[in-house]
Amino acid sequence: MDQFHHELPMKVRDYECDLQGIVNNANYQHYLEHARHEFLLSRGISFARLHSEGIDAVVSAITMRFKLPLKSGDEFVVRTRYVHDKFKYIFHQDIYRRSDMRLAVRAQVDTVCVVNGQLSEVDIL
Amino acid sequence: MDQFHHELPMKVRDYECDLQGIVNNANYQHYLEHARHEFLLSRGISFARLHSEGIDAVVSAITMRFKLPLKSGDEFVVRTRYVHDKFKYIFHQDIYRRSDMRLAVRAQVDTVCVVNGQLSEVDIL
Amino acid sequence: MDQFHHELPMKVRDYECDLQGIVNNANYQHYLEHARHEFLLSRGISFARLHSEGIDAVVSAITMRFKLPLKSGDEFVVRTRYVHDKFKYIFHQDIYRRSDMRLAVRAQVDTVCVVNGQLSEVDIL
Amino acid sequence: MDQFHHELPMKVRDYECDLQGIVNNANYQHYLEHARHEFLLSRGISFARLHSEGIDAVVSAITMRFKLPLKSGDEFVVRTRYVHDKFKYIFHQDIYRRSDMRLAVRAQVDTVCVVNGQLSEVDIL
Repeated sequence: MDQFHHELPMKVRDYECDLQGIVNNANYQHYLEHARHEFLLSRGISFARLHSEGIDAVVSAITMRFKLPLKSGDEFVVRTRYVHDKFKYIFHQDIYRRSDMRLAVRAQVDTVCVVNGQLSEVDIL
Repeated sequence: MDQFHHELPMKVRDYECDLQGIVNNANYQHYLEHARHEFLLSRGISFARLHSEGIDAVVSAITMRFKLPLKSGDEFVVRTRYVHDKFKYIFHQDIYRRSDMRLAVRAQVDTVCVVNGQLSEVDIL
Repeated sequence: MDQFHHELPMKVRDYECDLQGIVNNANYQHYLEHARHEFLLSRGISFARLHSEGIDAVVSAITMRFKLPLKSGDEFVVRTRYVHDKFKYIFHQDIYRRSDMRLAVRAQVDTVCVVNGQLSEVDIL
Repeated sequence: MDQFHHELPMKVRDYECDLQGIVNNANYQHYLEHARHEFLLSRGISFARLHSEGIDAVVSAITMRFKLPLKSGDEFVVRTRYVHDKFKYIFHQDIYRRSDMRLAVRAQVDTVCVVNGQLSEVDIL
């Protein structure tokens, strides 16, 4: 990812690893979600407050390619950039292992906004 | 546990195991919570609906003794009984491994009710 | 999904719901993984035993489309079918809400086998 | 906690909150475990490497008192101290909310070491 809007450093926690001794795949979704929410916060937008105001940012689709597994103790960074069309924010998110900056996960996350139950045209970023 | 109010059969899911190849301890808290909520449902009480009505059942303390570890594929049962005093429900919950009915986890979970932010005397069961 | 190899009935657990009151997306990955592992077990194949024998079934890519959110108490079924080519098992998995059998999540999960650290041509199903 | 051996700053991630809008209790066990493992790492001890060497540090009992709930965006610190007797490490761990340094969770975690399946007298710290 050449250009990105946000970068979050993180570290694997042991409870995120499964019996194969590597991070369980579902946790990458957690990492990506946390990175998006931290990105929003850096722009002054709280996911929790949006919800309490009746605006729910919702993931409509996600694609992840797993390139190499992270392990106990690995540090990594999540890089996030986005494009926006009328009804959708498309986030491109890459996870790089810190030790060698090799790509661990490449993801695309499509999100829409639901306002009081209705799909809505919004511009929150 | 000689007498109990509710019994829930469950099975270990592989993603609940950690790099030691056994169920990560935090998941036992999930099992216990799920068993309490299923018990409530069996009495016609929905945890989610309580919340939407402004009543939050909240755990104030938990004690767990881990006797033997559950592993991939293990089936188990959660047995739940409770005692009630003015402000508190005390749940006694045991987890038994199905294959030999040996005790895996013994727990006590104290819960209180918070109504619109205030600790309240309630009688939901 | 017209034809499928395996169907697993499940139910939302409250701890799987997040502050929006709906199942957190990462948990759908857990459901899908659990359904694949139960499918393997139904064919006599244990994911944990494979690992202990040096064979790791690993997800290389996943695509999920989220159609409608599951909520506290919802029952659902996960339907799984697969196709196999030389190096890859491709799983098609759909999650249907039980109450009306509407599609909640449609997923494709590509898995490869790594034997002693090397990508391998295998035929486990 | 007047004196402690280790302090870890952390922050709530939104996916750790449940439908009540507060951190799900099981996640406090995750926080405590992660803090213990980071403490061990600060002493040069890797939980994962211990496991690969046949030494499993295992929690035998845990007691947690929940004083106030953490919410989306809350920062907190986990303070850890321990005492050691022949067969057991007893960890005392407190979680404080950063904004006002009020106590959120007070915990005691008893751990034992299992070496090749046998409870063992060990001295790893």
